[in-house]
Amino acid sequence: MARTSRDDVIGAAGRLFAERGFHGTSMRDLGDELGLLGSSLYSHVSGKEELLVEVIARGDAFFATAADAALASSGTPTERLRRLIAGHVDVLVDHAAEARTFLDEARFLDSRERGRAVAMRDAYEARWREVIAEGVASGEFRQDLDPRLGSILVLSTLNALIRWYDPEGSLSRAEIVDELAAFCLGGLR
Amino acid sequence: MARTSRDDVIGAAGRLFAERGFHGTSMRDLGDELGLLGSSLYSHVSGKEELLVEVIARGDAFFATAADAALASSGTPTERLRRLIAGHVDVLVDHAAEARTFLDEARFLDSRERGRAVAMRDAYEARWREVIAEGVASGEFRQDLDPRLGSILVLSTLNALIRWYDPEGSLSRAEIVDELAAFCLGGLR
Repeated sequence: MARTSRDDVIGAAGRLFAERGFHGTSMRDLGDELGLLGSSLYSHVSGKEELLVEVIARGDAFFATAADAALASSGTPTERLRRLIAGHVDVLVDHAAEARTFLDEARFLDSRERGRAVAMRDAYEARWREVIAEGVASGEFRQDLDPRLGSILVLSTLNALIRWYDPEGSLSRAEIVDELAAFCLGGLR
Repeated sequence: MARTSRDDVIGAAGRLFAERGFHGTSMRDLGDELGLLGSSLYSHVSGKEELLVEVIARGDAFFATAADAALASSGTPTERLRRLIAGHVDVLVDHAAEARTFLDEARFLDSRERGRAVAMRDAYEARWREVIAEGVASGEFRQDLDPRLGSILVLSTLNALIRWYDPEGSLSRAEIVDELAAFCLGGLR
């Protein structure tokens, strides 16, 4: 096996955190996963908390990049929200470990780092709120809809995909995006 | 303080599992929470796994009872689904610890018990699938909607409430139920 990089360590930590939870993963589990002794592991990182911070930052970067791409071209609020949904689903499926850790395990960060994770998440949600607010203003969505609540409900619906997504299931990714978009857009109208 | 009952132990375990996760909670934390020494704790239960089973069974019982009440009286599929939603929200808010443990921590059960938890959850979801299927048949919901997927999307939207519910927030419980029902019913139509 090639020499283990810091990148490999963070990748493996993400897989274990997603599967067993942050508290269900020990540095020893991580060493076993990578075929490394504890002493080599600690030459890469100071400990589990640092790894959690790194995995969450990766999750955030994947989501932010997807949102940038989705919002790069113009369109109606409905069209832009649909592209945001497709990009979000891609991250949930293609980067499931980082996405799950970002969504579920940030509550276990210590308070300073947790504040940073909350700010990242809020910045991401702000992109959704803006598009939904434009859709309310344009009349595409319900006039009495609070964009903040709308973004929470849409992201709630989407994020649960990490619990039920089955790569062997009967729905293709495009069909999943269509179903999620139909449900969420219907819910906002 | 009155003598600690097995019931108190299970209640405290639910609160800790919901707050820190199953793996983030030790029997020692639980003893501290209850002001009990380990030896007294083990006179009530065999260990953490047994407590997880008990807390999840309580969560299931709360959800099943709420569904029974919601479906006891007749009405259109839309009306019955609305009552299911209100009952589900009541459990998420009033029994947050058991609900959260039921929803998030069952994956940490050992395989036999996990199979039982999956069966409980499937039986509960079946109540939702039936009402949604009736709504598709009656023409109230989209004709091409798969009731199984519909129930997953509705429950996904609702369950995230345990992450954003704020008893001090600006929305009353009735308003939250109205918003969730409007979003989910819109999504199914």
